[in-house]
Amino acid sequence: MRHVISCLVENQFGVLARIAGMFSSRGFNIDSLAVGETTDPTISRVTIVTHGDDFIIEQIIKQLRKLIDVIRVQDLTSESHLERELVLAKVSCNRETRGEIMQIASIFRARIVDVGTESVVIEMVGDLERIDAFIALLDPFGILEIARTGSIGLSRGAQALKV
Amino acid sequence: MRHVISCLVENQFGVLARIAGMFSSRGFNIDSLAVGETTDPTISRVTIVTHGDDFIIEQIIKQLRKLIDVIRVQDLTSESHLERELVLAKVSCNRETRGEIMQIASIFRARIVDVGTESVVIEMVGDLERIDAFIALLDPFGILEIARTGSIGLSRGAQALKV
Repeated sequence: MRHVISCLVENQFGVLARIAGMFSSRGFNIDSLAVGETTDPTISRVTIVTHGDDFIIEQIIKQLRKLIDVIRVQDLTSESHLERELVLAKVSCNRETRGEIMQIASIFRARIVDVGTESVVIEMVGDLERIDAFIALLDPFGILEIARTGSIGLSRGAQALKV
Repeated sequence: MRHVISCLVENQFGVLARIAGMFSSRGFNIDSLAVGETTDPTISRVTIVTHGDDFIIEQIIKQLRKLIDVIRVQDLTSESHLERELVLAKVSCNRETRGEIMQIASIFRARIVDVGTESVVIEMVGDLERIDAFIALLDPFGILEIARTGSIGLSRGAQALKV
């Protein structure tokens, strides 16, 4: 099963290498990983999407908790949560297809962020399913390149992962 | 200077550990890192934000190119490009402050994605400056938690980083 794991980590040199190295050395998969700042400059939040059975996920969480500089580990999938990913897609277009591409973007509440004579860049936010549906609809026009952030998430409600 | 480096990598086991390990062992900084799928399931795109003088950045790019499974490396900062980051922010609120928070969200074209009696979760996309401005405006209400993806980017125009 797919799991979204959120970690608060000390913003220390090499923390990402330790996390990625632990996954790699123990044979755990990383489907996506995103690291961003928090409001505390000494703390970053790492969101890892991985998959495995209950035993594997339990091992991953245990091993993450053991790592130096990892402060908190939360399996978002085990509770009510929000999940979002950002995608930038550069799509081939011409005067005939531009209108149709803009229509698809509008349906998905995506934004055109760059327009040229031969291509447009679209910015879209959604959960995994919506992004996959969006990309599938753009595919026939020719996707020139794509950049995705990987998922991030937060639990629903007022509770928060605290240091 | 801050640089956004985009890499196409083979979707091989341990590639992220090799990249993060190279930065760590050589003393290069990673400000943020985001990994996502591309339209080719065997290829992922890794976007790294780092900083350093011209010599350091040149070294980083050279070392990345040497790594197994790294196919292409592009310094987006050296050309006209787009850069975006996604943030999810859980903000403390009550009946008095909810309206004001929604107003700020609307100005930044951000979306309320979860509402409770004591908190709201806002989804916002922008470049670094806009996100920093947005967070600064929300800060007085009390940011309970925040998840950021780190920046992703694409070059402007129809050219694309190809395998």
